[in-house]
Amino acid sequence: MTDFTLDPRLAHDCFTLGTLCGLRLLLMNNNQIPWFILVPETSETELFALSPSLQKATGQAVCALSRVTKETLNAEKINVAAIGNLVSQLHIHVVGRFTTDYCWPAPVWGAPGGTPYTKAEVQHLTTTLKTHLGDTFLAAD
Amino acid sequence: MTDFTLDPRLAHDCFTLGTLCGLRLLLMNNNQIPWFILVPETSETELFALSPSLQKATGQAVCALSRVTKETLNAEKINVAAIGNLVSQLHIHVVGRFTTDYCWPAPVWGAPGGTPYTKAEVQHLTTTLKTHLGDTFLAAD
Repeated sequence: MTDFTLDPRLAHDCFTLGTLCGLRLLLMNNNQIPWFILVPETSETELFALSPSLQKATGQAVCALSRVTKETLNAEKINVAAIGNLVSQLHIHVVGRFTTDYCWPAPVWGAPGGTPYTKAEVQHLTTTLKTHLGDTFLAAD
Repeated sequence: MTDFTLDPRLAHDCFTLGTLCGLRLLLMNNNQIPWFILVPETSETELFALSPSLQKATGQAVCALSRVTKETLNAEKINVAAIGNLVSQLHIHVVGRFTTDYCWPAPVWGAPGGTPYTKAEVQHLTTTLKTHLGDTFLAAD
């Protein structure tokens, strides 16, 4: 156990799906776009400041999640970003984009739109991730 | 030599400063924000699809550039992103942000603003990068 606490805004906006490669795996509550957020358990706020082992785990998590989002969820493009201008806790967005989605080709950040998930949709997506991410994904209770 | 060709839109919008860890290092022509773009020489369009060696070089280049942007150019926050909705050629933005810049805290992508560099400003910035990035940076002619 660690004393790591998820930023309240991330906790409010997202479902916690579990951990991927040891990072918290969140799902933005927007069922129009597969929008994941990875949160390394660290107090550092910049990618370059992470330890080599945490940089490696972060890269592995980003790649595994991107691959599933593209190959299983059929996204046409993956947007990956660490921004953090509003929420300083380091977090990496992995977003599956479609040329038909509500804000294509604009970035999703700050774009209005989206609708919340149903509980069944989140459960279905979690099951899909379990199937395709393997043992590196540990689902939350 | 390779037959890699830089996307025309990137070539139009940016200065080519040289290479960093073997990736093309571009500078967006906007002197209000230190906005770099790294372009791996590949036809792949997603980070997860890069070879392990190119993933490693990309991570090293992003980290080195982020560190200089923060520690030498004194940016308050680093924004790192691979988006590619408009330009499909894989490219990674490394952007130094300031709480006083023209679009803070919004992301820079799509935000209006910015003014072009003078030739002297680009030369000065290139000299700074040479000093702080070391041998991994090879300046263009």
